[in-house]
Amino acid sequence: MSLANNLSTSMISSSSSAFLAPTSFNASRTRSVSVPLKSLNIVKCVATPQEQQIAYKTKVSRNANIAKLQAGYLFPEVARRRAAHLLKYPNAQVISLGIGDTTEPIPDVITSAMAKRSHALSTLEGYSGYGAEQGEKAVRAALASTFYGNLGIEEEDIFVSDGAKCDISRLQVVFGSNVTMAVQDPSYPAYVDSSVIMGQTGQFQKDVEKYANIEYMRCTPENGFFPDLSTVARTDIIFFCSPNNPTGAAATREQLTRLVQFAKDNGSIIVYDSAYALYMSDENPRSIFEIPGAKEVAIETASFSKYAGFTGVRLGWTVVPKQLLFSDGFPVAKDFNRIVCTCFNGASNISQAGGLACLSPEGLEAMQEVIGFYKENTKIIVETFNSLGFKVYGGQNAPYVWVHFPGRNSWDVFSEILEKTHIVTTPGSGFGPGGEGFIRVSAFGHRENVLEACRRFKQLYN
Amino acid sequence: MSLANNLSTSMISSSSSAFLAPTSFNASRTRSVSVPLKSLNIVKCVATPQEQQIAYKTKVSRNANIAKLQAGYLFPEVARRRAAHLLKYPNAQVISLGIGDTTEPIPDVITSAMAKRSHALSTLEGYSGYGAEQGEKAVRAALASTFYGNLGIEEEDIFVSDGAKCDISRLQVVFGSNVTMAVQDPSYPAYVDSSVIMGQTGQFQKDVEKYANIEYMRCTPENGFFPDLSTVARTDIIFFCSPNNPTGAAATREQLTRLVQFAKDNGSIIVYDSAYALYMSDENPRSIFEIPGAKEVAIETASFSKYAGFTGVRLGWTVVPKQLLFSDGFPVAKDFNRIVCTCFNGASNISQAGGLACLSPEGLEAMQEVIGFYKENTKIIVETFNSLGFKVYGGQNAPYVWVHFPGRNSWDVFSEILEKTHIVTTPGSGFGPGGEGFIRVSAFGHRENVLEACRRFKQLYN
Repeated sequence: MSLANNLSTSMISSSSSAFLAPTSFNASRTRSVSVPLKSLNIVKCVATPQEQQIAYKTKVSRNANIAKLQAGYLFPEVARRRAAHLLKYPNAQVISLGIGDTTEPIPDVITSAMAKRSHALSTLEGYSGYGAEQGEKAVRAALASTFYGNLGIEEEDIFVSDGAKCDISRLQVVFGSNVTMAVQDPSYPAYVDSSVIMGQTGQFQKDVEKYANIEYMRCTPENGFFPDLSTVARTDIIFFCSPNNPTGAAATREQLTRLVQFAKDNGSIIVYDSAYALYMSDENPRSIFEIPGAKEVAIETASFSKYAGFTGVRLGWTVVPKQLLFSDGFPVAKDFNRIVCTCFNGASNISQAGGLACLSPEGLEAMQEVIGFYKENTKIIVETFNSLGFKVYGGQNAPYVWVHFPGRNSWDVFSEILEKTHIVTTPGSGFGPGGEGFIRVSAFGHRENVLEACRRFKQLYN
Repeated sequence: MSLANNLSTSMISSSSSAFLAPTSFNASRTRSVSVPLKSLNIVKCVATPQEQQIAYKTKVSRNANIAKLQAGYLFPEVARRRAAHLLKYPNAQVISLGIGDTTEPIPDVITSAMAKRSHALSTLEGYSGYGAEQGEKAVRAALASTFYGNLGIEEEDIFVSDGAKCDISRLQVVFGSNVTMAVQDPSYPAYVDSSVIMGQTGQFQKDVEKYANIEYMRCTPENGFFPDLSTVARTDIIFFCSPNNPTGAAATREQLTRLVQFAKDNGSIIVYDSAYALYMSDENPRSIFEIPGAKEVAIETASFSKYAGFTGVRLGWTVVPKQLLFSDGFPVAKDFNRIVCTCFNGASNISQAGGLACLSPEGLEAMQEVIGFYKENTKIIVETFNSLGFKVYGGQNAPYVWVHFPGRNSWDVFSEILEKTHIVTTPGSGFGPGGEGFIRVSAFGHRENVLEACRRFKQLYN
């Protein structure tokens, strides 16, 4: 689209086509309403009328890798459409089961610890300035003993952060532009997008809806959502999320053993995203480091977001075992440490106080209650779609339900559901071409909203 | 150094030479003590004896750009030497005037707001999950009106973050590897290091102590710490910090007007670091956007760290005006927004509640008191070194005092001061070759410590 067009209007529809609209989105574009952007408080950076003409351009070339990105980051795009829908139906009772955003209050034992730390910062004894970039010693120690007690992961292998998503980007900065990578297809979009941004990929190929130079490991109902590794090309990096976002599938011990062996045979590094590990009902591994030999081929990233409702508080961690080495024998952890020290300044000390409280006996119990609540939601959603005759996946080990709409375009289904039930979901194709024909329904929501959503699903699809 | 050597010991001295020792450091290396690393809790990722032998190496190549980095990030290195000193002199009353770390409690009006927000997160009404990646609307609005009220910077031009250092790296990700960059020499090391990491530079050239393909703009007492722009080569990006870290110099309106014109003539983008703006005593601009036309060539990054003692709380912001365009006319803000949405998930909501309190009338007054306190410290330090006959720069508009030791090696002076007075400073050469022969003394410290430090300086240098 031309620049003139890009700057000529402050309407959502224009902003959307400028940098937010996914190429696969057709159905609802015609429905999008034109409203002044400022009132939405979601999309910014749009010229006001008096600034339409370009006064000056620098001579700095736009980063060609970022220009490769086809669409806005998925979840802001979903939020944008939710906002547009609300403008169209101002009185609609919109229910959000889209972005996996927690809704339940944080247990008091955890917020009290954060409030206490906040107050302490106003005292001479309780004040602290810069903390270690890698996180407070007590938090690292508690993470090590709580989650990796008998797995040989030590305090100094753990880097506390402001969240797994942020760590994924920091890991990509460590890897640089000259690595190749594989992702599950479908998968959490931050893996692919950060890879594109770092210049690891080629251009987006519209015919297959994939970026060149990324190995998409198809995960389907047919293969039990575990890729057929015999058909997967060797890559330097393998992103693997289990329990999976968006499919909800959890890899078994046997599958993960094969994955680790595959990485070992190929000399690859697995970036294992275990952000939903505590949602596991089955006896599958909660950590990749339960698999013998994984410390030599794997990094694990995790988060308090979905356990303690910390999506807004921001706290996660990444494990980079000292045994993980680049081809020249240099420890990956040393380079990750260098990036953490140079590009980051540690997670908020107040958030870390919250994390420490999460890992106390009372905190762990409180987190389990939160998780249990969302698992109950998941069950309700699964039963609803089952009763409607849909094939439903996930839900057992993850707070996501992966609903099959065979042969249908995901964004069309997304729009249909939003238009007719005022429920926000996430279109499967937003997670990769392998998600086409699916909708992800998040189980994060107040109980009455989940029940009401299920009533509406039944009305629509009965 | 060989890998075997690298992994063969768990001593500080080894770790230091592996990835922490700056090339310019000679004097104190011979003094460094060998102690088990774990007890220090600063440097990690060192093999324990039973893991010395390499069991397995992946086939993933180490990122060549990260391998270019010559030394550990400056401040962890200073912290490491402080820790080593404490091991040598366990009873020493070490005073830290090194890293610019705040020491005074956060005003109660601010911590109370954070505690209140923490508690609210445990209630149904007060809970919030993911916030906008760009920051809460109220915080952005308050920043716009407080700092940019009549400068034409609007709420949507402002991106709230977990700190200026983190934003510098995100900006580098936006720019990518194909830009050229200039920095003041000396300067805050994150600019150069993040540039190296992104692949914008060549190798480190030991003879001149500079990376190839970076334009070092020399700032000396002779040029009033403002570069002679007639000798500066055109680059895509110009990092400029005023009031400056480490020299404490603040650019005048006339100088900044020349800088903006220089950028405009060259089509460059200025990344203006104004993290110390509120320390200004003189009538110099507090924001680059006070200069007409700056919105077309400049980004500004800033922070609550040094105003409200938020070094551990983590909150900053970056202004990317919608008028700033790449050479193809694409708005830089759109790409920054994309990176913020993809690689970040917003600053902690509790920290943002603190930021909002900072910007209330009471908060602004309380911040001014904190700043006034540190400015008084600065005055004490300046007077001390003046009385000892040193040439002293900075201090008037910044919390840093830049002390000249003509002809001497900075790390030698650093070690001399640490060894003889137990005071931690920062060696000027850590900020670039232009800092050689200087020591940066930070004014962040309790009053009694600053006074005691000044007594010791007087003993040493009288």
